[in-house]
Amino acid sequence: MKVGGQHFRTIWLNPANEQVVQLIDQRFLPHRFVIEDVSTVAQMATAIREMHVRGAGLIGATAGYGMYLATIEAAGSPAVAGFDRHVTDAAAQLKATRPTAVNLAWAVERQLTSIAKGKSEVRAAQALDWRKTVQRKVALALATAKEIAAEDEEHCRMIGQHGLDLIEQVARRKNGKPVNVLTHCNAGWLAFVDYGSALAPVYAAHDRGLSVHVWVDETRPRSQGSKLTAWELGQHGVPHTIIADSAGGHLMQRGSVDLVIVGSDRTTCTGDVANKIGTYLKALAAQDNRIPFYVALPSSSFDWTIRDGSEIPIEERGAEEVKRADGWRDGQMLEVSVAPENSPAANYGFDVTPRRLVTGLITERGVCKADEKSILELFPEHAS
Amino acid sequence: MKVGGQHFRTIWLNPANEQVVQLIDQRFLPHRFVIEDVSTVAQMATAIREMHVRGAGLIGATAGYGMYLATIEAAGSPAVAGFDRHVTDAAAQLKATRPTAVNLAWAVERQLTSIAKGKSEVRAAQALDWRKTVQRKVALALATAKEIAAEDEEHCRMIGQHGLDLIEQVARRKNGKPVNVLTHCNAGWLAFVDYGSALAPVYAAHDRGLSVHVWVDETRPRSQGSKLTAWELGQHGVPHTIIADSAGGHLMQRGSVDLVIVGSDRTTCTGDVANKIGTYLKALAAQDNRIPFYVALPSSSFDWTIRDGSEIPIEERGAEEVKRADGWRDGQMLEVSVAPENSPAANYGFDVTPRRLVTGLITERGVCKADEKSILELFPEHAS
Repeated sequence: MKVGGQHFRTIWLNPANEQVVQLIDQRFLPHRFVIEDVSTVAQMATAIREMHVRGAGLIGATAGYGMYLATIEAAGSPAVAGFDRHVTDAAAQLKATRPTAVNLAWAVERQLTSIAKGKSEVRAAQALDWRKTVQRKVALALATAKEIAAEDEEHCRMIGQHGLDLIEQVARRKNGKPVNVLTHCNAGWLAFVDYGSALAPVYAAHDRGLSVHVWVDETRPRSQGSKLTAWELGQHGVPHTIIADSAGGHLMQRGSVDLVIVGSDRTTCTGDVANKIGTYLKALAAQDNRIPFYVALPSSSFDWTIRDGSEIPIEERGAEEVKRADGWRDGQMLEVSVAPENSPAANYGFDVTPRRLVTGLITERGVCKADEKSILELFPEHAS
Repeated sequence: MKVGGQHFRTIWLNPANEQVVQLIDQRFLPHRFVIEDVSTVAQMATAIREMHVRGAGLIGATAGYGMYLATIEAAGSPAVAGFDRHVTDAAAQLKATRPTAVNLAWAVERQLTSIAKGKSEVRAAQALDWRKTVQRKVALALATAKEIAAEDEEHCRMIGQHGLDLIEQVARRKNGKPVNVLTHCNAGWLAFVDYGSALAPVYAAHDRGLSVHVWVDETRPRSQGSKLTAWELGQHGVPHTIIADSAGGHLMQRGSVDLVIVGSDRTTCTGDVANKIGTYLKALAAQDNRIPFYVALPSSSFDWTIRDGSEIPIEERGAEEVKRADGWRDGQMLEVSVAPENSPAANYGFDVTPRRLVTGLITERGVCKADEKSILELFPEHAS
């Protein structure tokens, strides 16, 4: 999507030097647009752990590129054993950065499998030059990193196309008046490689020339809505308005919301949706006002092993995030205290929206109902 | 209620000099406890306009004391006509500070009626000494100011007693485990002269020795929950936990909330409740999880002229409140930016919770259902 008129992804190879990965350091958004050069696994681990990058899809892609950097580093080893040890250590280091992120472990494992292939291929050719083996492993890691990112991008693009149909239906009914979409948190391109999940249909509609306007929940305590969603919509030229997390219900009562689209951190195979804390409240308000409530997600966000949303573990984060606000002042990021020092605070990261409140799921293969039968019709390979 | 172990009200006469009003300047809470001396109408108008004081009950009481200060100032006039003109001007000045606050105009009008009595009384006695008239008017204004404040306090105390019954019922069921109350915004003693509305039952239960714990919605964008409610509960020793506004639904799903009690800025005679934006979302979640949802309000917050909540005008405040966060850092209040400079924001102050979501209303005369018949049974003088 666009930043200042130029097309960007969240992560890419430095075109002048393919041994360097570049990514948008999201910590300074919306106040500064910072591109970070990453050339070591240690730097990449820091970028994930310290949330220079975040969001399910993007974390997976970043881990993929991190493993590619691991093979470059390992190629400096004087023997194959050293190479393998370095790659294994890097895998563990990357996995440990955000232990709850499903896509992180998945991408690292996929890379390990891919890199291992280099060995067997070269063995099969009975080539004894281990330098050739290493070259092949680096090439495979690069190809896999690109593949993970490209798949993420393509899945999000397809979510956009399927969601576009839903927005077009509303647009026809509204006769040129803007279609008002409400979203929560950031499930835009900044959370993936490009396009996003919840925002992909919005970008598709906007790029198609439809009039679309987004109500952006600020999403306390980390303000991903006002800091990231508002910024990416603004840069791409999509009309939007930031609101307090409490305002969505009132807007729905007034008829100012046509549909709700949110992302998902994890969705059960039966259609219960874990997403950023507060999603459930918006789903209740949508139901109370007969407004469609859609969840957009690539299939990598389904948890095929869990049958009930109540089984999804809910991350509790540090209380300080609730008692502080991070913002920009005089050219720097500052943290201010917004609560009594001695008052405790609780900080639940996610809630679970039961399937009965979800109108439909927008996936890369199409839109389906939030129930097991409909989900498995789209993804029959997971029926077991 | 208590601050640092000492009993305070939000507004009182300086015991050493009854021509000076003292109030808690709430702008610096929770970081500094500042008492302001007010001795002129101009100062009092600033205190209301700039929100040194806020909250329906407290604004009314403050306006009452402001009119008392007006009579003291007017007593310096060389003739009765000058006195009257000064009092009329002061009334207009005070009323203009927060034009939507119902209690403000009501308190000023009550004072004008009271002060006018001074004239007729003295005329009736055929006393021609206008200084006596003026003395009588000042005395009447002082008595009325005290009366308005005392009534507010007594109504809140009674709300506490009636609400206490509801908390005791839950406490019996919970066998000594804490009763968990969720509240939104600040409807505590800081919004009234003492006790508060939504928090009055909590204080009554706590003072009775019941185990009670309050989930405090931070209440963006002005953070009255984390800044005021958490502070007053902490000072009085009531266990509490601050949460993001988005968290309440999740807590209810987990069974961590026993009842919700909120205040009201205006309630129709049919039981629809206007309160701080976000109240409606908590009412929906309470209903979805079968948790009682109570609204505590003194009868002064009923609007006897409006029959449907949709007729209540909803104040839109400045967008900057949403795009900024105000907090404490290095010994001073600082404002930081939490959104892109170019993104628009909308800032609705209130929403309307329809009566069907309200379990009951807690008033100074008792608890009733949120419907016209039940409300008028408690307040038959408004049946017309």
